[in-house]
Amino acid sequence: MEKELETLISMPFQELMSYYRCAMMEVETKFRVLSEDFSVRYERNPIQSVRPRLKTPESIINKLKRYGWELSTESIEKNLNDVAGVRVICSYQTDVYDLAEALLKQDDVQLIRKKDYIAAPKPNGYRSLHLIVAVPIFLQNKKKMMRVEIQIRTLAMDWWASLEHDMKYKKDVMISEQISKELHECAELSDAIDRRMEYLNRQCEKR
Amino acid sequence: MEKELETLISMPFQELMSYYRCAMMEVETKFRVLSEDFSVRYERNPIQSVRPRLKTPESIINKLKRYGWELSTESIEKNLNDVAGVRVICSYQTDVYDLAEALLKQDDVQLIRKKDYIAAPKPNGYRSLHLIVAVPIFLQNKKKMMRVEIQIRTLAMDWWASLEHDMKYKKDVMISEQISKELHECAELSDAIDRRMEYLNRQCEKR
Amino acid sequence: MEKELETLISMPFQELMSYYRCAMMEVETKFRVLSEDFSVRYERNPIQSVRPRLKTPESIINKLKRYGWELSTESIEKNLNDVAGVRVICSYQTDVYDLAEALLKQDDVQLIRKKDYIAAPKPNGYRSLHLIVAVPIFLQNKKKMMRVEIQIRTLAMDWWASLEHDMKYKKDVMISEQISKELHECAELSDAIDRRMEYLNRQCEKR
Amino acid sequence: MEKELETLISMPFQELMSYYRCAMMEVETKFRVLSEDFSVRYERNPIQSVRPRLKTPESIINKLKRYGWELSTESIEKNLNDVAGVRVICSYQTDVYDLAEALLKQDDVQLIRKKDYIAAPKPNGYRSLHLIVAVPIFLQNKKKMMRVEIQIRTLAMDWWASLEHDMKYKKDVMISEQISKELHECAELSDAIDRRMEYLNRQCEKR
Repeated sequence: MEKELETLISMPFQELMSYYRCAMMEVETKFRVLSEDFSVRYERNPIQSVRPRLKTPESIINKLKRYGWELSTESIEKNLNDVAGVRVICSYQTDVYDLAEALLKQDDVQLIRKKDYIAAPKPNGYRSLHLIVAVPIFLQNKKKMMRVEIQIRTLAMDWWASLEHDMKYKKDVMISEQISKELHECAELSDAIDRRMEYLNRQCEKR
Repeated sequence: MEKELETLISMPFQELMSYYRCAMMEVETKFRVLSEDFSVRYERNPIQSVRPRLKTPESIINKLKRYGWELSTESIEKNLNDVAGVRVICSYQTDVYDLAEALLKQDDVQLIRKKDYIAAPKPNGYRSLHLIVAVPIFLQNKKKMMRVEIQIRTLAMDWWASLEHDMKYKKDVMISEQISKELHECAELSDAIDRRMEYLNRQCEKR
Repeated sequence: MEKELETLISMPFQELMSYYRCAMMEVETKFRVLSEDFSVRYERNPIQSVRPRLKTPESIINKLKRYGWELSTESIEKNLNDVAGVRVICSYQTDVYDLAEALLKQDDVQLIRKKDYIAAPKPNGYRSLHLIVAVPIFLQNKKKMMRVEIQIRTLAMDWWASLEHDMKYKKDVMISEQISKELHECAELSDAIDRRMEYLNRQCEKR
Repeated sequence: MEKELETLISMPFQELMSYYRCAMMEVETKFRVLSEDFSVRYERNPIQSVRPRLKTPESIINKLKRYGWELSTESIEKNLNDVAGVRVICSYQTDVYDLAEALLKQDDVQLIRKKDYIAAPKPNGYRSLHLIVAVPIFLQNKKKMMRVEIQIRTLAMDWWASLEHDMKYKKDVMISEQISKELHECAELSDAIDRRMEYLNRQCEKR
């Protein structure tokens, strides 16, 4: 416990957190730039929102402990990929992949890992495209690569994920198998309508 | 055309628009306050986002013309209810009604009209609760009641409405009857899953 | 120490803090409304910025202890006037008083205390108009009056105050009498130029 | 007049403006990153605010005409350096130069021109450091260098500049020679106190 507190209030920890905030801003700006570009060129804006999120000190420590990793800033930087997060919500599945492609083409973005939970949804029904990237941040005296987790998903995927998250995190509640099964079904139904709306949109665009 | 331009650049028009912006800010703040209150008391925050929107001068003029109303600031204030708009997106249908009730209870909010497109959806499938209210704004030398249109809807209703809006507004495209029919079906399917998720949430809360 | 922690993580404390955030938003909106109104009617906008600020839990506890007040939410609400703060920066001294007057005229704002540190600067040279007011916040089931400290000052007063604050809060530094004296002189010089600029502005307006 | 309107509503013009918005966001982010870095490492944050500003279509056209330049998007991009602007306000003169140096060191920032109105103030008394830089923006299919004008100044310089700007822009008012002379004196007095405050701050830091 003391060791934890010591880590949290230390200068190097505060510094590291500020670097993650910077990386988050850089990635957010990259998507805001793409949003400007898409908006002007298409008749619709595929990006509905871009939301940065920084992991709290509590959940950083919990994750380190859960995996048996050392409690230090070096360990955080080496072991965790999701301290800085950016969530991008767009209209259709095609947009998800177009945005990911546009980002990964950029010469200062380095892909660390991609997990496509749209092609292969999680067992509970969760759908989203996850990218771990490293981007440069320019500090007063150095340039530093920092890792950011990016989640790109459609409005429908985000709808399901945010309601499911709220249910799961009610305190002291274990979700029964029955409810899990039904949540999974809702995810699949929502995915079906999502694809149908995208199909209708393509019909409109073709005409 | 000249008459229109004259109206738009006139001081009274600029003044009126600034009053609508003020009214929008007041309503937005009312929902942000409710959001704080709900967040602390429940284990989830029912308000996902609050978005103000001011009608453009172009669409104000178009609407006045379409209805054959006079082109003047008095006419705008008398005839139009939707110059200032605030859209509130929440998790479940119950939240929609709870929020509307909490707002209408406030002693400085005056209800002008309520349209419940959830109980009775529009022919195209659109679902939302619309309130026209008047709220006071405190200017340097006077207090003035201004009208604001409030749309409260669930994430699922908003998802459908925003995609449908994008399709409809593609330039020069008339949506075929076939596509309209399918959009309507998607609205109903989305409503069905929405209710099912709300039911699951209640199951979790009960336990 | 345990008593402090208990207080800080308790539901009533979290609730009270959220009420202060709401009151801050209400006051901020009141000034944004006045800013809209002044901007349209004058050829300049007297409000340069409006900044809310919530006292941290640490400084709330320190203040309670310093004055020997009880450590409880009731005690916070009864004894502290500056948990919620809003700072308003404007162009000239006349604006400071005009804004204060416009605010205090509003029928839902209740003045608790006024301290005019412009007419009578603090010993260190600090100038600002301080108002403690109570404003209503509308929660889901009740209306509640909450206190907010408002500081209204000119850009020049804010410039001096923010630099002086940074110097004073350097760690472990006691400001020498010599430096205090010079800071005080700078405050007076800055006030002299402030008045001279205001005089020049009036000359321009008269012509 | 028709030619002007044609230019303004054309796709290429809209596209160009969106590119300038992107460049402004990139530069703003660069300063927000530096602000994070300085805040953690020093006991004070030298950056008080970062404000983007896009030139209006009207003033773009006026400037092109004033200089007899062609009315086209190519001409805008070639001839104008100040379509996109970012103003950075900091505490002391040293901060102005430290920030400029930190920015110009970055390997994706290209300096086009530097004008040091602090070392050599404008005839009216205006003080500020101006940099014209080019920064890359990453669009869906290409990387493009865009020019941005950056103005870095202290709070005191900004105070004088913003009040002077308001006086000058009152409609139909020619500022008399007498008032100009007095404004110039105020600029110099304000500069003198600015340097004195910086000196006091250094005294505090040394101890």
